Order: sequence, then C-alpha cells, then structure tokens
Amino acid sequence: MSSYVNKQVILISRPKNIPEAKNFKVIESVLPKIKTGEVIIQNIFLSVEPAMKGWVSVVSNYADPVALNAVMKSFASGVVVESLHSDYQVGDLVTGMFGWQEYALVKADNIDRKITGSPLPISASLGVAGINGMTAYFGLLDIGNPVSGETVVVSTAAGSVGSCVGQIAKIKGCTTVGITGGQQKVDLCKNLYGYDQILDYKNDNLANTLTEACPKGVDIYFDNTGGPISDEVIQRLNVGARIIICGTASISNWNPVPHGPRIERQILVKRARIQGFLIFDYKDRYEEALSNLTKWIVSGSIKYRENILHGIEKAPDSIAAIYRGENLGKMLIKVS
Amino acid sequence: MSSYVNKQVILISRPKNIPEAKNFKVIESVLPKIKTGEVIIQNIFLSVEPAMKGWVSVVSNYADPVALNAVMKSFASGVVVESLHSDYQVGDLVTGMFGWQEYALVKADNIDRKITGSPLPISASLGVAGINGMTAYFGLLDIGNPVSGETVVVSTAAGSVGSCVGQIAKIKGCTTVGITGGQQKVDLCKNLYGYDQILDYKNDNLANTLTEACPKGVDIYFDNTGGPISDEVIQRLNVGARIIICGTASISNWNPVPHGPRIERQILVKRARIQGFLIFDYKDRYEEALSNLTKWIVSGSIKYRENILHGIEKAPDSIAAIYRGENLGKMLIKVS
Repeated sequence: MSSYVNKQVILISRPKNIPEAKNFKVIESVLPKIKTGEVIIQNIFLSVEPAMKGWVSVVSNYADPVALNAVMKSFASGVVVESLHSDYQVGDLVTGMFGWQEYALVKADNIDRKITGSPLPISASLGVAGINGMTAYFGLLDIGNPVSGETVVVSTAAGSVGSCVGQIAKIKGCTTVGITGGQQKVDLCKNLYGYDQILDYKNDNLANTLTEACPKGVDIYFDNTGGPISDEVIQRLNVGARIIICGTASISNWNPVPHGPRIERQILVKRARIQGFLIFDYKDRYEEALSNLTKWIVSGSIKYRENILHGIEKAPDSIAAIYRGENLGKMLIKVS
Repeated sequence: MSSYVNKQVILISRPKNIPEAKNFKVIESVLPKIKTGEVIIQNIFLSVEPAMKGWVSVVSNYADPVALNAVMKSFASGVVVESLHSDYQVGDLVTGMFGWQEYALVKADNIDRKITGSPLPISASLGVAGINGMTAYFGLLDIGNPVSGETVVVSTAAGSVGSCVGQIAKIKGCTTVGITGGQQKVDLCKNLYGYDQILDYKNDNLANTLTEACPKGVDIYFDNTGGPISDEVIQRLNVGARIIICGTASISNWNPVPHGPRIERQILVKRARIQGFLIFDYKDRYEEALSNLTKWIVSGSIKYRENILHGIEKAPDSIAAIYRGENLGKMLIKVS
C-alpha cells in the first residue's frame, strides 16, 4: 500500500446562478488508508455536466446538494490502483461517481461498472457510452416512444445528450429537427450528427423557422432548455405529442420561479404528455442501453465529439464554460 | 310519418369569453322528412358542459367550433319516435350528440348507444353514467394509475367529473383531497362525495391549507381548472406524480395566452408526468367504463347529484350559470 497525495476540487461557496471558478478551490490532501471492501481508483477523466449547476444548488432538486468544502461530485473514469474487494483487480478500468479529484477511495458498491474490454476509448464511458448516451436512450425511447415517420425536435441539439437523441431518432426512422446556437454548432449538427433540419436560436427567428422546419408539426420534443425555445415548440405540438423534460439550461435561476405562457390548454387540446425523467431511475437497465449504444457507435450510426481540457486545475471554470457555450462536445477533464 | 315543429337553440354570435344567453337564440323550424338509415329522436334531457365554452370558440381546440346560426352542439338523451334503421325501434332510449333541440334527425351511426334497460334514470346517461363519469374513469384510472395509499387531489371537486374522480379514487384506496369553492360545495364534498379533506379556494389560503391537507405530498392531481390552484398543487408533487389535465375552467380567455409560473424544473426534479386527455379518444372502451360505473352507482359507492333546469328556454344562459358556480351537480335541461 502506498500513500497518495490527492489533488481535489472542493466547493467553497454556493453560486447564486451558474457555478464559476471562484466557487471552487483546488487543494491537496492525503488519501486515507484503504480498508477491507474498498478500492482506490486513479481517475483518468472527470466529467463536467450542465446538471452540476443543480448539484450545488440548495433549490429543490433530486438529491442533497454538494456540501461546502466537500469534493465536487462528478462522474469519473479511471483505473484501479489498489483493491481490497474481490470483484476488482488492480488495472481494472471502472467508472462511477468518483468526484473531481485525482484519486478516489470508495467502497466497491460505489463503482457503477467496469469498462475494461469496451471497444470504445475510456473517455466515451463518461459521455456517449455513459450517462449522456443513456440519458438520450431512455428519455427518447422509453418516454418519447418514437414511431418511424414522426418529427422529433431536440433542443441543445449539439450537446452530448441532444446529439445522441437526434441520432437515435434517425435510427428509429424519425425526421429530426435540431435547435442549437451559433454557426459552429449548426455545422456540427449538419456535418456530424445528421439532423434533417437545423435551427439556430441565436440567429433565426424560431417563430418563423420552426414552422417551416416542422411542416407536419411536432410529435416528440426532447427538451434540455425550458424557457422561450420550449414556448415556441409547444405551440406546434401534434395530437398525442410527447415532451421529455431532461434539463432546463436556458433558465439560470429558479428562485423565484420565472413566469412564462401557461401550457394547460395546449396540453389538453393536443392530448399531449410532458414527462420529466432522471437517468438514475433506470439503473437496472443500464446494460441494455450501453450494449445498444456501443453497437451503434461502433457501426457509425452514432457519432460523438469530445471537448477535453487538460489538468484538474481546469475543472473549476469548466461548468461556467459550458453555460458560456464554449464546448463543442462532451466536456471532460483529463486529470494528468 | 308526422311533421315536427322543432324548437332549437342556435349560436348567433361568438362569445369573447364565456358563452352567455345573448350569444344564443331559441328558434322554431320544421324537421326535415326522415330518410332511409335515419332516426328521429325526441330529446328528453340536454346536457350542459363547461367544455361548451371551448366548443363555440375559434381558439385552438380539439374540433371545429360550432358554426354561427347552427344548433348548439350538445349531448342529449331521448326516445326514438321514428326509425328507418333496423337497429333502432320506436321507444328505444338513446344518447348521443343530438344538440340543443327538441327533436334530432340523425343518421343511425350518430347515436352513441342505447340506454334502454339501464337500472339508472335517463338523466344519468348524460352525467355520472355518461360522459362525465367516463371522463373521471379513464382520466383517473388510465392516465393517473392510482395506487392504494396514494394522495389524489381533485380540483372542481364538487363538479360532475370531479366528484366522480374523488369517489373512484376512494374505491381504489387512495386518500382524497377535494378543492372546491363556497360552503355549499364544501358541504356536498363532505356529506355526499366523502372526500378525506376538503379545501375551499374561495375562503382558504391554499398555500397553507394544501400543505396541511397533503402531509405526504401529492401523487395524483386531477385538474379541471388550470391557473393559480394548479400552481399551488404543482409545488407539492411527489416523485413520480401524475397530473391529468381535463379542463381549464379557471382561465376565461386563452387569447392571448396568460402567463404563470414555469413548471419545467418541478416536472424534471419530481420526474412527474402531465397529460391532457379527451374522452372521445376512448370510444372503443366506453362499455367497460359504463359497466363499472353503473355497478358502483347501484352499489352506492358512487353518489351523484343533478341540477335540472326545466324548459329548453333555459339553455342559453345555462353555460354562464356553470361559470357563475350556480349549479350544485350535473347541469341538465329537461326539454319539456
């Protein structure tokens, strides 16, 4: 057993809206000694998610917020460097909620899964073949129930979840309409993700372009934004439409709750269904999703892009960078 | 074959908000001669629905609005007085969309069903053992999926749909919380419909009383109101909650669309489902619903109340009377 000096990113203050570099601090600590049933993982990649804004907020959410002075919660993938649990051997590649730190000392059951033997790079386990791909998979297929020929609109179309939603919808024979912001993301949606129609909410007038892009109306809306983009899409729902609420990226502050057009009448008249979901509720079906996603990635039906920052010191500003729209793919931190 | 002078209520102007007496006119016309395949029905009861506000509006709805100078669309129950279709005999009691008029000359396939032989009074076929009861049945059971022990909140709790929702929820072992307005309706909810908790939105401060009435949160919200009542209920949803959007009675005008608190975040965090529905989509399952409803009514598990106005001349003001909250049960017109 060795002793490890562990560089960690801790939350030192609670952001009012979007978490910024100043809310975090990089510290060094010494990893405690490993005990029976525990595993030490050397993190290789750390994940950065828009949802982290919620994870550090005290406003109503699906889990307790990260405590002040605690290591920032995050998905990470790495290699087992010590193990006192028979399921894990030194050298195993694993992924789980290991946090923004170089080393994670965890009980074995805190490991989500082994990724040794996957045909995909380790980094994919945090995005397209991980939480983002699975979010797209269950949200679109389980809640959206897409039928061939239907029109699927995706907000944050170039994002790590949205891009995957668009491509799975194509695999299922749907017409896909991606909404994104800025020319670089429009180009990605066109050249890499293969949307049938792409709208730029920063430069187009959605009120006009959405109608043109969806001549047969909207059957499924996979939403990561909330707010004004959703207001436009909801006006164009077909009878029996499904809306998947996956994120609310366009709304920076929910306290107090912002106001917008009421949707009760449209939901009633269109017999539409709006449903929120959380990927963690699907844990017992992760294997099914990962098996299909891996197959589609290997065959080229799903393409993906990563935006890798080098060095754990880049972590504190990385969430704000997503909200500034700087990344053109899944945002990851390569630890060293 | 006789000739019939037919008193009819026609729509002569389109209301801006709630349809009032001045928007209708009672006229007399001569019924055309019956042709092969047709049936003449003498209406006994005409139905009055809050939804009629939508039926005469040009704002987005689920069917074309009633045309100007056309007979007001309505459910009605009556007796066959002439028939040139082998399925129907003189004397059969039938129900269907026969309109606000004394006599209806219809093609046989415009008859919804025969009600001859039912153990219930004819009037019930327009309410608790008709469209209102079936709306409660499919909305609560099919969309709400109630589980014994869950908390079900019903807005317009004393209404012909709401009162039935509350009682079916009790049959299914749920805790029921009814929201209604005024002491008379509170008393009905308590003494006739058997809600576990009753809130008076006109006199209580829902922000306080809802929390007390739902100590375990809200699992199902059957909504007929939209607006401020819904805003309060939605704040108290449990994880996995279901909201059934059946009507929007509290909002008098949707053009322009009124604003209210955005719900995206709450729907996401609570993995809630909101779904609009329309009873007409369930036509192939009416028999199932009617059979169960009749059984529950006969056994006393479902109680109901009717508010019968006498004479077709009462029809023009009857929708406005509902919106003024004057009725204490299913509003019906006894034709003569």
